[in-house]
Amino acid sequence: MMLDLLITGGTVIPVDEEGSVYDPGLVAIKGQEILYVGPAGEGLPADWKARRVIKAENKLVLPGLVNGHTHAAMVLFRGYADDLVLQEWLENKIWPLESKLSAEAVYWGTLLAIGEMLLAGITAFADMYFFPDAIAQAVAEAGIRAAIAPGLIGVSPDAAVRLREAIGFCQEWNGAADGRITTMLGPHAPYTCSPEYLAQSLAAARDLEVGIHIHLAETETEIKQIKDQYGVSPIAYLCQQDLNNLHILAAHCVHLEEADIDLLAQNNIHVVHNPGSNLKLASGIAPLPQLLGAGVLVALGTDGAASNNNLDILEEARLAALIHKGYSGQPTVIPAAEALKMATANGAAALGLAETCGRLQAGMKADLIIVDREQPHLYPRFNPLSALIYSARSSDVDTVIVDGKIVVEGGELCTLDREKIMYMVESHAQKLLR
Amino acid sequence: MMLDLLITGGTVIPVDEEGSVYDPGLVAIKGQEILYVGPAGEGLPADWKARRVIKAENKLVLPGLVNGHTHAAMVLFRGYADDLVLQEWLENKIWPLESKLSAEAVYWGTLLAIGEMLLAGITAFADMYFFPDAIAQAVAEAGIRAAIAPGLIGVSPDAAVRLREAIGFCQEWNGAADGRITTMLGPHAPYTCSPEYLAQSLAAARDLEVGIHIHLAETETEIKQIKDQYGVSPIAYLCQQDLNNLHILAAHCVHLEEADIDLLAQNNIHVVHNPGSNLKLASGIAPLPQLLGAGVLVALGTDGAASNNNLDILEEARLAALIHKGYSGQPTVIPAAEALKMATANGAAALGLAETCGRLQAGMKADLIIVDREQPHLYPRFNPLSALIYSARSSDVDTVIVDGKIVVEGGELCTLDREKIMYMVESHAQKLLR
Repeated sequence: MMLDLLITGGTVIPVDEEGSVYDPGLVAIKGQEILYVGPAGEGLPADWKARRVIKAENKLVLPGLVNGHTHAAMVLFRGYADDLVLQEWLENKIWPLESKLSAEAVYWGTLLAIGEMLLAGITAFADMYFFPDAIAQAVAEAGIRAAIAPGLIGVSPDAAVRLREAIGFCQEWNGAADGRITTMLGPHAPYTCSPEYLAQSLAAARDLEVGIHIHLAETETEIKQIKDQYGVSPIAYLCQQDLNNLHILAAHCVHLEEADIDLLAQNNIHVVHNPGSNLKLASGIAPLPQLLGAGVLVALGTDGAASNNNLDILEEARLAALIHKGYSGQPTVIPAAEALKMATANGAAALGLAETCGRLQAGMKADLIIVDREQPHLYPRFNPLSALIYSARSSDVDTVIVDGKIVVEGGELCTLDREKIMYMVESHAQKLLR
Repeated sequence: MMLDLLITGGTVIPVDEEGSVYDPGLVAIKGQEILYVGPAGEGLPADWKARRVIKAENKLVLPGLVNGHTHAAMVLFRGYADDLVLQEWLENKIWPLESKLSAEAVYWGTLLAIGEMLLAGITAFADMYFFPDAIAQAVAEAGIRAAIAPGLIGVSPDAAVRLREAIGFCQEWNGAADGRITTMLGPHAPYTCSPEYLAQSLAAARDLEVGIHIHLAETETEIKQIKDQYGVSPIAYLCQQDLNNLHILAAHCVHLEEADIDLLAQNNIHVVHNPGSNLKLASGIAPLPQLLGAGVLVALGTDGAASNNNLDILEEARLAALIHKGYSGQPTVIPAAEALKMATANGAAALGLAETCGRLQAGMKADLIIVDREQPHLYPRFNPLSALIYSARSSDVDTVIVDGKIVVEGGELCTLDREKIMYMVESHAQKLLR
């Protein structure tokens, strides 16, 4: 049999239930799929040949990282307004710029974000933003995988029109680009979506067989507002809806009571933890050990670059592993393997792609990354998981493969024109300021 | 006049009291010193020529970063033991390996740490460890700047001998390597140094005219132990000594009462905050906003790589800027400029080098770095300080200059043999396991 790609000699971390590490290991890829993952010792059948062999000596081979919550095009606002009180930041800085966005600006912003994410080893992301066709176009061209949710603001005057357009977007794009694009609906948050609008969005998602991407319990202000208005927590507010047969991705979940954690677990709501954004905006520190203890599936997200200020899931994984140790006083919580699982397999699950990617396993899509360990900050070579989570930087990512195709090689983008994208983003960002 | 180095076209951040940014700016270097820093518009006198010009278009030019507290050679234990309870980590993992250390292992470990630090834009560090001659040898060869403190464990049987040796080390090495090496004495901590031993160390430091480098108030266990034993906090325990005319660098200061903060301010004790290590070991979260509010000078440190697990001050600056916002609920605390000052000017001051380096100013030593902004994650180009603290990675450091000499260029070490050092460290680390 002829393989398309064979990766030899590396330390392979498949992120499976057993916590396997194959050192050295082999990964064989045919077309879009992984055909074989295992220890090198057993080798491949003698009649298997490969069109291309990547030698990964002293490198780590692992599933691509997944960014479970972002607003990619918000890279346009990166560094424009920092160190401010939330309301001032939003009302005086971000919203005025956002109101001037065009499909073209979102297209270029999303391309820059994708370039940044690919270089940082991110092979899939969940996006919630406006101008979803522009986002989908960028994803299709760049070769990354994405679950795209048009953002739906229930309190805006054109909310009904936007929901109809979003349904049309899902019908057009779900499964596009060889399946790399999937779609979700994005009712923004409890404080921007009435029970009726939320019910319409959920019903539409059920009809379309797509998931829901929502912000939930991000700030204390939100908790107070929803309690004042509806007498329940934001989690309970969502769970008053019919959630049967719905896949829910809930970003943030920072401020939770015990009953909220139970509701998240019972309803199989997938939580995306955004430690960098939650810290920078001073939203708070989510009860991550408690969520994991209750069996909630938790992935990691960067949120938009305006509140982070980068799209670096390895950094979020390290933040998650560090801050919850310090905050809980327990140095054993969120060990390296847990942080890695959140950044990979759990991320894929949060996007509704648990059977598609997020682990290295025969039959899954070939979304994987190769990390160069030949660096002073990664020596000596003890535990590879520890090296990845506690010592590595996203710039150590050497090669990125999505859907069987090499999209980053030697730390350079293969599918995108980096210079042109940076130029166009600078020019659109400056235009927004006028 | 003939200059040695002229840096043109970059965005120059001198880290001065006024928060100046020169865009574009000029930096002129002659010998070891900065001769001129300012806006490019004013130019240089017509008769000034430069042996070498570095064009820094779309790059940031700033003082070298300072690592205010580390045990450099502990890179030998990086990734060997993580996610453990403190006592198990120390007693079963780190101390047994440490007891087998040799001068040669410390030499190679320190060289690797220096290579890692230089590549991450660190131009000076404060070290406390054993085999100080091996450390000094490595610093002299590598071209970095360091304040080296032999570690002194008052409760060990050879404590008196070690103090005599440390005095000899200071006499031999203080001011060596063209002044790049300075020395301190390192009485380890209140719980390992009796009042008598501490008094001897402080008296010796006063005689030698060198500073003191000590761990202080790192864990709750320490607070309890010192209170049980002496009836006072660790800070008060130190301040019972005669601190007149002494420069004190106190690492950690995590668990503090209000009276402790007052004592630190009154005694002009320089605190080094180690957010990564404090989180990873679950030591706690230091009251940084309160310390800064009381006028305490606070720098940043990585601690040893066994508890971090890298030596990356840009990462510590981001951690400091992020975690204290989230923990305090105030998004305005530790803004980017404050984090940068802690990582540069305050670091130099903590090492006793406030007049030598840490800022770009005529007459100071030429310790500076050039950061490449031509990267997707650093676009668009709004606030350069925000880009540096919230978006950049240490791998964006392109050029590093210490004492007027280029030690990193194009992200490659100029003074060290990277491959040989990695090989020697791997081999020594494996030997320690036997």
